[in-house]
Amino acid sequence: MSKQLDKRRLRAGIVGGGRGAFIGAVHRIAAELDGQALVVAGAMSSDPQTARESAAAWYLHRCYESYTAMALEESRRADGIEFVIVATPNNLHYPVVRAFLEAGIHVVCDKPMTFTLAEAEQLTRVVEGGKVLLCLTHTYTGYPAVRQARAMVASGALGQLRKALVEYNQDWLMTPLEKTGNKQAEWRTDPSRAGASCCVGDIGTHAQNLLEFISGRRVTALCADLTSFVSGRPLDDDANMLLRLDGGAKGTLVCSQVACGEENSLAIRLYGSDGGLEWHQQEPNTLIFKPATGPWQYLRAGKSFDAAAAKAAIRTPAGHPEGYLEAFATIYRDFIADVRRVAGGQAAAQDYPTARDGVRGMRFIEKAVESSRLGAQWVDL
Amino acid sequence: MSKQLDKRRLRAGIVGGGRGAFIGAVHRIAAELDGQALVVAGAMSSDPQTARESAAAWYLHRCYESYTAMALEESRRADGIEFVIVATPNNLHYPVVRAFLEAGIHVVCDKPMTFTLAEAEQLTRVVEGGKVLLCLTHTYTGYPAVRQARAMVASGALGQLRKALVEYNQDWLMTPLEKTGNKQAEWRTDPSRAGASCCVGDIGTHAQNLLEFISGRRVTALCADLTSFVSGRPLDDDANMLLRLDGGAKGTLVCSQVACGEENSLAIRLYGSDGGLEWHQQEPNTLIFKPATGPWQYLRAGKSFDAAAAKAAIRTPAGHPEGYLEAFATIYRDFIADVRRVAGGQAAAQDYPTARDGVRGMRFIEKAVESSRLGAQWVDL
Amino acid sequence: MSKQLDKRRLRAGIVGGGRGAFIGAVHRIAAELDGQALVVAGAMSSDPQTARESAAAWYLHRCYESYTAMALEESRRADGIEFVIVATPNNLHYPVVRAFLEAGIHVVCDKPMTFTLAEAEQLTRVVEGGKVLLCLTHTYTGYPAVRQARAMVASGALGQLRKALVEYNQDWLMTPLEKTGNKQAEWRTDPSRAGASCCVGDIGTHAQNLLEFISGRRVTALCADLTSFVSGRPLDDDANMLLRLDGGAKGTLVCSQVACGEENSLAIRLYGSDGGLEWHQQEPNTLIFKPATGPWQYLRAGKSFDAAAAKAAIRTPAGHPEGYLEAFATIYRDFIADVRRVAGGQAAAQDYPTARDGVRGMRFIEKAVESSRLGAQWVDL
Amino acid sequence: MSKQLDKRRLRAGIVGGGRGAFIGAVHRIAAELDGQALVVAGAMSSDPQTARESAAAWYLHRCYESYTAMALEESRRADGIEFVIVATPNNLHYPVVRAFLEAGIHVVCDKPMTFTLAEAEQLTRVVEGGKVLLCLTHTYTGYPAVRQARAMVASGALGQLRKALVEYNQDWLMTPLEKTGNKQAEWRTDPSRAGASCCVGDIGTHAQNLLEFISGRRVTALCADLTSFVSGRPLDDDANMLLRLDGGAKGTLVCSQVACGEENSLAIRLYGSDGGLEWHQQEPNTLIFKPATGPWQYLRAGKSFDAAAAKAAIRTPAGHPEGYLEAFATIYRDFIADVRRVAGGQAAAQDYPTARDGVRGMRFIEKAVESSRLGAQWVDL
Repeated sequence: MSKQLDKRRLRAGIVGGGRGAFIGAVHRIAAELDGQALVVAGAMSSDPQTARESAAAWYLHRCYESYTAMALEESRRADGIEFVIVATPNNLHYPVVRAFLEAGIHVVCDKPMTFTLAEAEQLTRVVEGGKVLLCLTHTYTGYPAVRQARAMVASGALGQLRKALVEYNQDWLMTPLEKTGNKQAEWRTDPSRAGASCCVGDIGTHAQNLLEFISGRRVTALCADLTSFVSGRPLDDDANMLLRLDGGAKGTLVCSQVACGEENSLAIRLYGSDGGLEWHQQEPNTLIFKPATGPWQYLRAGKSFDAAAAKAAIRTPAGHPEGYLEAFATIYRDFIADVRRVAGGQAAAQDYPTARDGVRGMRFIEKAVESSRLGAQWVDL
Repeated sequence: MSKQLDKRRLRAGIVGGGRGAFIGAVHRIAAELDGQALVVAGAMSSDPQTARESAAAWYLHRCYESYTAMALEESRRADGIEFVIVATPNNLHYPVVRAFLEAGIHVVCDKPMTFTLAEAEQLTRVVEGGKVLLCLTHTYTGYPAVRQARAMVASGALGQLRKALVEYNQDWLMTPLEKTGNKQAEWRTDPSRAGASCCVGDIGTHAQNLLEFISGRRVTALCADLTSFVSGRPLDDDANMLLRLDGGAKGTLVCSQVACGEENSLAIRLYGSDGGLEWHQQEPNTLIFKPATGPWQYLRAGKSFDAAAAKAAIRTPAGHPEGYLEAFATIYRDFIADVRRVAGGQAAAQDYPTARDGVRGMRFIEKAVESSRLGAQWVDL
Repeated sequence: MSKQLDKRRLRAGIVGGGRGAFIGAVHRIAAELDGQALVVAGAMSSDPQTARESAAAWYLHRCYESYTAMALEESRRADGIEFVIVATPNNLHYPVVRAFLEAGIHVVCDKPMTFTLAEAEQLTRVVEGGKVLLCLTHTYTGYPAVRQARAMVASGALGQLRKALVEYNQDWLMTPLEKTGNKQAEWRTDPSRAGASCCVGDIGTHAQNLLEFISGRRVTALCADLTSFVSGRPLDDDANMLLRLDGGAKGTLVCSQVACGEENSLAIRLYGSDGGLEWHQQEPNTLIFKPATGPWQYLRAGKSFDAAAAKAAIRTPAGHPEGYLEAFATIYRDFIADVRRVAGGQAAAQDYPTARDGVRGMRFIEKAVESSRLGAQWVDL
Repeated sequence: MSKQLDKRRLRAGIVGGGRGAFIGAVHRIAAELDGQALVVAGAMSSDPQTARESAAAWYLHRCYESYTAMALEESRRADGIEFVIVATPNNLHYPVVRAFLEAGIHVVCDKPMTFTLAEAEQLTRVVEGGKVLLCLTHTYTGYPAVRQARAMVASGALGQLRKALVEYNQDWLMTPLEKTGNKQAEWRTDPSRAGASCCVGDIGTHAQNLLEFISGRRVTALCADLTSFVSGRPLDDDANMLLRLDGGAKGTLVCSQVACGEENSLAIRLYGSDGGLEWHQQEPNTLIFKPATGPWQYLRAGKSFDAAAAKAAIRTPAGHPEGYLEAFATIYRDFIADVRRVAGGQAAAQDYPTARDGVRGMRFIEKAVESSRLGAQWVDL
């Protein structure tokens, strides 16, 4: 691996994310957006022709037919990639991530981290024992407003947290889309590729991660009622949960892929003894602060965010809306800075979601499924 | 009672609602707003001086020191009241309502209907065996948008209901207000006057009523986690519940009196196989319809509400906002029309909340409290 | 006139406002809402049968066939009305108001005040020379948020005013409704009944009044471009204006009756050297304050309004939306308090729109029409 | 210039945009976002050290001290840039653009196009006589919602256009920021660098461009009232205008840099005989459609936009907000596609803002300034 990382953009590769997978282009845009990296290699599909066409569409000159070949070859080249993006279905996360970690190549992996909790714990041991970095793309933690919210909670602006309401509603699976040839729907509703859950795994984990990221509190127990509303679907497409958090707060987590009319409606409301906060992902540049005294304040990215972590995540002046791709890019930017740090002999900062968040998410999925199978009874995390 | 009800405004009396109780003036305004009734008599406080001063402030010439005296006297007068408004703390609902029912005077009563479920069931038997009407002021069912929503659900606009999210959050009890002399807070947090619950009883019942009114579906089981966040408070000031409804829908009901920054934030979202609906009480003139295909539609009172029941509840052209008092007045208007019907020998229409809704609400309260006491376990309604 | 006004509701009468005129019921509700007056007499239509039916629908026992008969009779009765509501087309305002003023009966009159500026000036001389009160229903000044805004400007919260943007857009005249038998459209588009203008007279004057009421600044010059978009309509249905205000601020006033999709969209934005304000009539309980430093604040009626004049105009706790009828009622309540004051020998407070506001509005109409006729050239007010 | 443009990302250079100019990074991100180009060369500042440091921060290996050297050298290299980005103050646009055009290098230039209308007309003649492309970054035309709006107007969804209200309000110049060392404020308020106008030139032109782009109608006359509210500022920081458009519509254009509390509040409302449209740049993924019959529809990017031009500008599923950088990138993507077309011998599509839009904008600026100097009198465009 070239040592002169400080004079150039990093080189990146991607596994998965070929034609038809919108998340592939999202990863490429996000990884490159701040001018810190370029995607130069890919094993973008298990189908050779799709892999070639996908690579050509991105002007990639290094196109691999398998991730194992890619890990081997890139780790040997003088101009090999510094990190790989893993954008495959869940069941492949573990082997692909492991292959690159063992090849000494840093990894950015989609969430949920793995197919099972055991795999996630195993990967964590690999990462924590070595010098290779693993970043998990819990995208929503990259938003300036989310970082502002986290800083405000940490600073005591809410006082003692009492109530947490988090939700993530979509409608894209409200019909049996998986039977129409839609590849995204196919693997997410297939227990052999998605894992124990569809809805909780795909989006519920984002909600749980967001809640814990902002509140600084962990879910300690949950009572989850999962449902498959679309006939014949083997995994859940909807869930309602009661939550208890350490420190005494209580709340609900709602997620759905059959909530007619909802697009990607992730939202959080926190209420403490001294203030409240509200944020909606679909209007991400506004954070509503509700002090115990005085009117609601509409804090705006670029204008009234004062937390350093929030301001560092803003690229444009107030009123120039930044969105999902920018939030995603901020995760990458922080990760790439860490790659540079490690290459320069510095300690990693790890100020992005890591394997520990991944394990946390996998445990959440398994416990939610367990709770529901018991008839929506309380289980501890 | 004078029979010539068709040539004049009806005469009404009130029990409770004296100085310091905002709900008293709300009842008077609502009862009189459509020019169909006038409040002429009152037993507005158990404190004689407060009773006199309250009556004088309303220019009432018939001021009673007790509700029993009032029921007796008004039932005997040639120009006696046709109906009475009961605006006392919950523990007095049963005896007061019963006294007027037995005096042959129609009754409008605040919710929750009684102190206990048993009382509600007892009153129901009295009402249903007689010719005297009982109206329960579940105010929010008076909004045009709520009636439009109900009509749309009934017409099949949502298809098969899948998910119901209802919430009612306030913050007025986020501090121990009951220890500062605030009379409203005192009785609502006092088990001897409020009943088994504070938060669920005062506002959770509105949420449950709204959900069942609009959806046409009943809550069949719930799992409720009630909390008293303010130290030393004997009753709940917060609740989170999982719900199951007949017909297979699931959902959550959230209510709080300690949700910092929230005023009177009652809101409902319903999701079916063909469409969704969303309504917020604080912007009551808009109903959002989310069809499975096509963009969200913002249905507006006076403009795009097409249900007869909705249009009948609108007084002004679109864009002239009507609010809480008008919704309350619509309940009264429908009730008064029924009083005229009954006086004229017609059958009652009962198109307003009645004793049956009251029993339903009392059962909801008792079951929520029971569920929570069991450790937030599922109970059937 | 009975002197014992302090022991009872006042008695009111109405001229105009019969069946088909929505504003009639609005006046009745508003006049009676706070329990301070009752409408007992009316000359509700020039058509005798409509007059009788309208009065009967309101349970009025004193029904007159002409306003002259009503003024004469009511001024003679021991239980005569204390004030009259004038809700006729504009061309009748002058004679009707004059008749009642001369009969010693206080008057509440719809805006615009008269048919011509000269009439308004003449009425002003009558009012200011006598002891009879005239209130003009510029409804929107009755909103708590509008009073809060006015108090904030007066207190210097905006610093030096720089920019004022006010608008009032509707769409009800976007087709030739006046040719379909709609009485409201007929007279408002008829120069012999409405006066020099339709759109500017009917709603532009509300916008001008609101701007001057809140800002405390007068329009000193305007450049107005009036249009009749609907073919064959003799009066304007749309206007765009540039404004200059005393003190150096500039701005625009936009009004339209053909703005497709708009209901009753009155809105104002003010910008000063230290802060800004924004208010929308269709969501009237929120006032947005934009300080030069810090985030936007959403001031809410009943919660964060601190001006005495605003708080006095709120009937319910925060989150119980009050609307158009309540704003209208506040105008009446203040007027009725003045009637009681005058009857009791006190000086009038005149804290509601008066003849002076009416003259101001008539001058605005005439100057806007003049400017437009000159080819949208600047004219001074 | 290499002919094999179809196998690789294009090479781009930049003039201006060095440290301290936020727009530099915006251009780089936008140019590269869709993986179609890489910025490889720059003359980023007239100060050599700033130029070097700025280039190093972007990992550029070709750093020039002057734009003339850059144009010369890049046109000679085998791996020279295919296009240049011009992000300098307005007074340099003409010489810089001309140098690159004459070197045969395509150009992307910030708006307003030039320092004077005459320069813009001169550049237009150069461009239209040659084979080199010029793209003007009227960013806001890149938003999917704006393209959807344009398509809807073109398809007749609004019927005959009657009223157009467009505004662009900011507050960043509400104090004399130019006296504090802020470079952005310095040149924009300096007549020798900005041209005839500050506010109208910098943002008013965006509003005019947006209006004409969406409506397909041209401003034919205007009456403009320009003001410098901040003492000592030689150019306008605020403007209010009346507009007339071809086809008979009328309207207003409001822009300000002293509107306290406003960030980057560009908004447009159009009203026709059959429908209305409303769009706000700060919530760019929603387009409100107001049909003459039926409720408002909230058209959402990725979900209910059906115009091909709109859908082509969306990268992510509905609910994943795209913003300013993505809109900017869409302009670049369309321009780069044209560069590829021209290199491949095809005709240019020119589906992005061009020199003609630039001339239009410069004429608008000059006429607005002229109108205001005449005392806010009407002038024809």
